[in-house]
Amino acid sequence: MTAQEKTTVSRWDTFELTLDGPSTGNPFIDVELHAEFRLGNRTVRARGFYDGDGTYRIRFMPDTLGAWTYRTSSNSPALDGKTGEFVCTEPAADNHGPVGVTNTYHFAYADGTPYYQIGTTCYVWNHQADALQEQTLRTLADAPFNKLRMCVFPKHYLYNQREPIRHPCPLNGDGKIDASRFNPAYFQHLDRRVKELMALGIEADLILFHGYDKWGYSEMDAESDDRYLRYVVARLAAYRNVWWSMANEYDLMKNKTMADWDRFFNIVQETDPHEHLRSIHNCREFYDHNKSWVTHQSIQRPDTGEVGAWRAACRKPVVVDECRYEGNIEKGWGNISARDMVHKFWLATVKGGYVGHGETYLHPDDILWWSHGGELRGESPARVAFLKKLIEDGPAQGLEPTRICGDLPACAAKGDAYYLLYTGDCQPALAYLNLPANAAYHLEIIDPWEMTVTPVDGTFQGKCEVRLPGKPHMALRLRRC
Amino acid sequence: MTAQEKTTVSRWDTFELTLDGPSTGNPFIDVELHAEFRLGNRTVRARGFYDGDGTYRIRFMPDTLGAWTYRTSSNSPALDGKTGEFVCTEPAADNHGPVGVTNTYHFAYADGTPYYQIGTTCYVWNHQADALQEQTLRTLADAPFNKLRMCVFPKHYLYNQREPIRHPCPLNGDGKIDASRFNPAYFQHLDRRVKELMALGIEADLILFHGYDKWGYSEMDAESDDRYLRYVVARLAAYRNVWWSMANEYDLMKNKTMADWDRFFNIVQETDPHEHLRSIHNCREFYDHNKSWVTHQSIQRPDTGEVGAWRAACRKPVVVDECRYEGNIEKGWGNISARDMVHKFWLATVKGGYVGHGETYLHPDDILWWSHGGELRGESPARVAFLKKLIEDGPAQGLEPTRICGDLPACAAKGDAYYLLYTGDCQPALAYLNLPANAAYHLEIIDPWEMTVTPVDGTFQGKCEVRLPGKPHMALRLRRC
Repeated sequence: MTAQEKTTVSRWDTFELTLDGPSTGNPFIDVELHAEFRLGNRTVRARGFYDGDGTYRIRFMPDTLGAWTYRTSSNSPALDGKTGEFVCTEPAADNHGPVGVTNTYHFAYADGTPYYQIGTTCYVWNHQADALQEQTLRTLADAPFNKLRMCVFPKHYLYNQREPIRHPCPLNGDGKIDASRFNPAYFQHLDRRVKELMALGIEADLILFHGYDKWGYSEMDAESDDRYLRYVVARLAAYRNVWWSMANEYDLMKNKTMADWDRFFNIVQETDPHEHLRSIHNCREFYDHNKSWVTHQSIQRPDTGEVGAWRAACRKPVVVDECRYEGNIEKGWGNISARDMVHKFWLATVKGGYVGHGETYLHPDDILWWSHGGELRGESPARVAFLKKLIEDGPAQGLEPTRICGDLPACAAKGDAYYLLYTGDCQPALAYLNLPANAAYHLEIIDPWEMTVTPVDGTFQGKCEVRLPGKPHMALRLRRC
Repeated sequence: MTAQEKTTVSRWDTFELTLDGPSTGNPFIDVELHAEFRLGNRTVRARGFYDGDGTYRIRFMPDTLGAWTYRTSSNSPALDGKTGEFVCTEPAADNHGPVGVTNTYHFAYADGTPYYQIGTTCYVWNHQADALQEQTLRTLADAPFNKLRMCVFPKHYLYNQREPIRHPCPLNGDGKIDASRFNPAYFQHLDRRVKELMALGIEADLILFHGYDKWGYSEMDAESDDRYLRYVVARLAAYRNVWWSMANEYDLMKNKTMADWDRFFNIVQETDPHEHLRSIHNCREFYDHNKSWVTHQSIQRPDTGEVGAWRAACRKPVVVDECRYEGNIEKGWGNISARDMVHKFWLATVKGGYVGHGETYLHPDDILWWSHGGELRGESPARVAFLKKLIEDGPAQGLEPTRICGDLPACAAKGDAYYLLYTGDCQPALAYLNLPANAAYHLEIIDPWEMTVTPVDGTFQGKCEVRLPGKPHMALRLRRC
């Protein structure tokens, strides 16, 4: 093979090896397949998976430039000992790699580009009719969100009474799943949707288990749970925009023990060669986020003002993935106002955390963004976009709490060049600031709802008094002159 | 003496016996004076007090119609063994007697008239210039409030830097008080202001201690504390509109122990023959309201949604006397919006509790309602008046939590004839109710901010669905047809 014939893969893109193997018996259980990928003296092991019709695949996301080689190993002779090579080349301009934790409480892409998490939730958008899925993607293309929470398994719940278009596992005649097999067509579709999110710059926070179920996905035995985890991680870990969420509302799944959740984390961690972010989402009780395999805190709580307490309790990024949803359904978790949603975003952000949006407006066909995707009808996304741009326009490192004004509910800094303050529910007409004495600052008054930024005349320095509009939910930005 | 010459006192008005006695030495310490009042086989003991210039007084509030006799006892021969009688007659139409606890969590006047506590706070209005005090009374005459929290001692604090017009104790040359004596002119003025509040139908919740002090009132020795308590109770207990609050923010007074607070309660209880309401107000930590001498819970917390938890923790009325103030000062406790204040009132009310208002708008002369009285400038009092009228228009007994709609943050009932529901921060466009199946109800949608009541066509019964405006902070009233 000459040099110009070599396979090339961009850094953080996906190399995929396709092999033909046995299709008899139950390949999901019978066949073990791995490959070792080597670059220099480094070896990375990736698991392969059965994709139906005698086709096996091994996917790999190279993180280092250069010539990689690989060699497969399998208990099936047809799949064992296959070798090859590819060259990992420079990534495209919009490919910054997977997201990881940086500066203890924040996130960045692998190339160092800051990642300010602005999430949303469409739990089972991938289980809806195709036209609706396409509409969801079009909506996301114009929305501010750079992370989407979504379930691998279908959902049976309030406003979620329809059957999914495809099932992850085949169904028996009684409507219950055959947990010993997977449905490749379902997962091929999931692959595609995850890649489409990637193309939109959106991280796919894949929820691996949840309890809203009538088919049996939430009641598989331990062996099936573990096989499922290895399968989904083998399939999807080579997509750079994947995050692993062990569960939504894990604490509502009464037939799983804490030891099960620990084991799930461990299986995901050992199966994923690319070390994607790992979390678990509560309903009421938090999982112990201090456990080493948890990369960040995925929290459900209505009051995002508690971000500081959660940072103090666990020195990992805080993502309030559910703080209730903008909407008007009958349930308290799904009927906060857009103003309240915007407030929750600002409060958490200026306390050094991150938030997830959701939307639950009644719809004649029960198409609620929170579960089904479709169209966004709320008033918060535009304001969330305004916040996102404002944060992206600031210095690179994440916002850290500071004490330059003890009276306001939230004050954040990026070093001593940039301060962002938020009045929350308070409507002060004045504030006393304690800025650094050795520098002057420009002040702007930000109205997060009206999306305006109004410069204030003069400069501010040291201990000083500032006049404010006397309206709630205002922000102050101070930048060193 | 013929029958028509007999002194008469209306029920729950004040009988006052004036006696001449010694003015030498320190009568506040040296002279003990009591009277026993008798009606039939009942004897009630009231303490007398020195009012300066050789004048002593004993006040008594008869609670029972009929001919009362009395006899004094004193260690001063000039004051000992005085006897007399008076006839207690029917009260005037607007005199309902003192307020007490009824139905565990609620209040009523002694004649059984319901009392729905709608409080406000003007901590030291009685220490301001006379013209300002008169303005405060004029404002109160047009305001919805039927309780006022006020301090006996002057206040030294943020926005409270002026000297009081009179001091409860004489000052020494160093600006510190002589705690061994009282200033009768100060207390005569206090008597008058309490009686003026009575004439306006306003309960005077007298705060006996607080820590915002530079004169020494908060640092008296135990003997002086106790003497002061007996003096103020002897003077004021015969005014039917008095409530006793042991302290404002008792937990900030670091030189008082829990045993001190218990003792203060006990002294007030044993000195007050009329058993006025007794409470103590926290800053952070609650006093144990379950102690027998506490008649109701006087709470400081921003979130009035916790009323249910406080009722469960202590089966006594819950009064959130401070939930932050409507205003625009720099402090978080003094800059919530009028909308937020109205929300806090509604939320607590529909959870079966009571709330206190306060107002802290910046003023060129630092005249803030919360401390000084004066004029009300906020937008919440009109809405509080609307709420008050609405509650007064309902059935007599207090609102009790109910579960006719599990999705809404607050649902209250008065028996099964009347339901009041509140959406709080939620903006549902529909709600599922579980009304009694055997009766039909009229539904009205109440907008607490716009102060509108909009009837909904038709009647509702049993399990039913109602459509709502999809706006936050709305209420539903259901009345049996």
